[in-house]
Amino acid sequence: MIVQKYKDMLSGKSVIRQLAEFAAARGAEIGYENVFDYSLGNPSVPVPQEFTDTMINFLQTRSSNELHGYSPNPGITSVRQAIAASLEKRFGIPYRTEHIFMATGAAGALAHAFRLVTEPGDEILTFAPFFPEYHPYVDLTGAVLRVVPPETETFQINFQAFEEMIGPKTMAILVNTPNNPSGVVYSAATLERLAQTLTRKSEEYGHDIFLISDEPYREIVFDGVEAPCVSKFYDNSIMCYSFSKSLSLPGERIGYVAVNPACRDAEVLVNMCVQISRGLGHNCPPSIIQLAVAEVLDKTSDLSVYETNMNILYKELISLGFTCVKPGGTFYIFPKALEEDAKIFCQKALKYDLVLVPGDTFGAPGFFRMAYCIDTEKVERSLPALRKFVETEYPNR
Amino acid sequence: MIVQKYKDMLSGKSVIRQLAEFAAARGAEIGYENVFDYSLGNPSVPVPQEFTDTMINFLQTRSSNELHGYSPNPGITSVRQAIAASLEKRFGIPYRTEHIFMATGAAGALAHAFRLVTEPGDEILTFAPFFPEYHPYVDLTGAVLRVVPPETETFQINFQAFEEMIGPKTMAILVNTPNNPSGVVYSAATLERLAQTLTRKSEEYGHDIFLISDEPYREIVFDGVEAPCVSKFYDNSIMCYSFSKSLSLPGERIGYVAVNPACRDAEVLVNMCVQISRGLGHNCPPSIIQLAVAEVLDKTSDLSVYETNMNILYKELISLGFTCVKPGGTFYIFPKALEEDAKIFCQKALKYDLVLVPGDTFGAPGFFRMAYCIDTEKVERSLPALRKFVETEYPNR
Repeated sequence: MIVQKYKDMLSGKSVIRQLAEFAAARGAEIGYENVFDYSLGNPSVPVPQEFTDTMINFLQTRSSNELHGYSPNPGITSVRQAIAASLEKRFGIPYRTEHIFMATGAAGALAHAFRLVTEPGDEILTFAPFFPEYHPYVDLTGAVLRVVPPETETFQINFQAFEEMIGPKTMAILVNTPNNPSGVVYSAATLERLAQTLTRKSEEYGHDIFLISDEPYREIVFDGVEAPCVSKFYDNSIMCYSFSKSLSLPGERIGYVAVNPACRDAEVLVNMCVQISRGLGHNCPPSIIQLAVAEVLDKTSDLSVYETNMNILYKELISLGFTCVKPGGTFYIFPKALEEDAKIFCQKALKYDLVLVPGDTFGAPGFFRMAYCIDTEKVERSLPALRKFVETEYPNR
Repeated sequence: MIVQKYKDMLSGKSVIRQLAEFAAARGAEIGYENVFDYSLGNPSVPVPQEFTDTMINFLQTRSSNELHGYSPNPGITSVRQAIAASLEKRFGIPYRTEHIFMATGAAGALAHAFRLVTEPGDEILTFAPFFPEYHPYVDLTGAVLRVVPPETETFQINFQAFEEMIGPKTMAILVNTPNNPSGVVYSAATLERLAQTLTRKSEEYGHDIFLISDEPYREIVFDGVEAPCVSKFYDNSIMCYSFSKSLSLPGERIGYVAVNPACRDAEVLVNMCVQISRGLGHNCPPSIIQLAVAEVLDKTSDLSVYETNMNILYKELISLGFTCVKPGGTFYIFPKALEEDAKIFCQKALKYDLVLVPGDTFGAPGFFRMAYCIDTEKVERSLPALRKFVETEYPNR
């Protein structure tokens, strides 16, 4: 019989997707260039030319089996080695080939990480505001995701609420910095305090608590901002990375799990990923993409447009009277709405062809997200609409 | 804490992989060209040139976002449409876009199919000889795989044993034709009788029993053999396909789930695949590979070498006195060993640098598998070794 659990999920439609559908429908009416669609986090800049050139060169010169043959289960060895070397050089952590497991983007990496350290019924804690897909990602493993309420002044960690929620069933903590949706980067002080708390709680509960770090936005960090590497602060840490945003190839599904060499049983964990993968459908990243990415590991797309857009939007939002934490990275900004219910606020914005996403979805009611991975020219054209929206709907703000 | 279930799996090493490792080690000693490695089912012929040309053309002419952007969750619409049209044309079943879900190879497709129709504790039945990875694929969903013993005269279905094993907890039947490891193609009579049994048992138990068909070898069918389409025989059927073997690109992880349009709630099942995918790590096949494969749907690699190899081996095996069902397709042959314990038989063969896989692994003790996806020249060079092995070890056969 058809499994009810998945059938039931069909009725719950994502708010973000509904808004994106509105934007597409409205675009069909008035031209998509006239819809200020800030709903979706799709990279807007092209892949580096070196990536394309590498792909073409491989296809012209390498053998079919070398390019398209089965990848070893944990990923192509030379690719894992290159990633380990690049991470060591950059972060000073002695990663080796055997600490790297290739996965289909950060989502694929997380699917393995959760299963490494939680059994059904165990708890994973994350911090609002958070990426709402974490719910199905975790729930469908049988573990339970619990969300620590936000610290809305800075969008760092609300440690008081965290200490109240962590308990003996907490097996892992999931962090996402630079953060979707806030754009905030966790400071060294935040990560230090988090690590101390986890060390203390691991002792108190008599079991390891793992720190799982979702890092798809690691390369999108703005001028003057320091983005500390999460794994440097805590031994039992598992890095989940994706090349989707840094190289603008989200459709190619490539990323990795990097288990901290200082983690207990680090190499065992990587081998366990291979076993987990058998149950998930051997979803190794595509061979040719693994090989090509390894050639451009230290390159990124031209990510500067995101910072340009952020600065334009931040300045305008502040001048319009919004309260807003200045993003340190990503392509998101997360201001406070001008009325209590951000859902109503975002609904009103649609009249001005502004597509904004209410923060409720991200565990932070009263705020809204703008994904500014769009052309700068369009960001600039959206400013009069934003001003008109605010001045018309909130004249006495 | 580290999850014991996956840690325990690390000690159970696959027999096939151990043999492949032996072959690699022996190859380092005497030259791999001198090891007659029949252990691994890796395609040995190149991708069609049209595929490579399409990839290069796309990379040279299409935009980065078009090639590498996010794929919609069920797969790129135009690709699903092209696959549906191709299936309809070929098999006369009215597939439409909404019946196709793109998956990472047959393993990825099966990971979705199992979860569509079984809950933990439910049973899936399959028929020996069978692909041993079905065990972790099914076990890790929480369902239970039960294996019906083989009908060793023909390697069609042992219906008597099947009728004894099917029961009210059986929610799905898993078939693989053309079959790994036997090379046998299920006849229309076999599939007809299977469908009748399932219809009768569905009524008896008061719930649908789904027929899941794993078809990676569909395009490798030999001259004069008819390979009936499983889905034509039974409405509640789910086809799991991979392009790994037909296009020789196993590393690129591309295949699909095709739900029979006549299946109850067919379109709901495809939408449920999208939900399942959220729990498995959004392992959509890579965008560029989806687009390129859609351009060569009705092409295959030059698969004729497999038939050439089969004919050479079959003739030699028969002349050496082996009992052997002649394969109708795939790149496997599955003769009876010359002593009762095929593990000992295969162990002895290693002395002659012949790497054969005992049938115990495939649920058919006493038989052994040869994967002849290797150069014909090497098959020919292996014949004297095979003859020497048989004449030396089994002089009185």
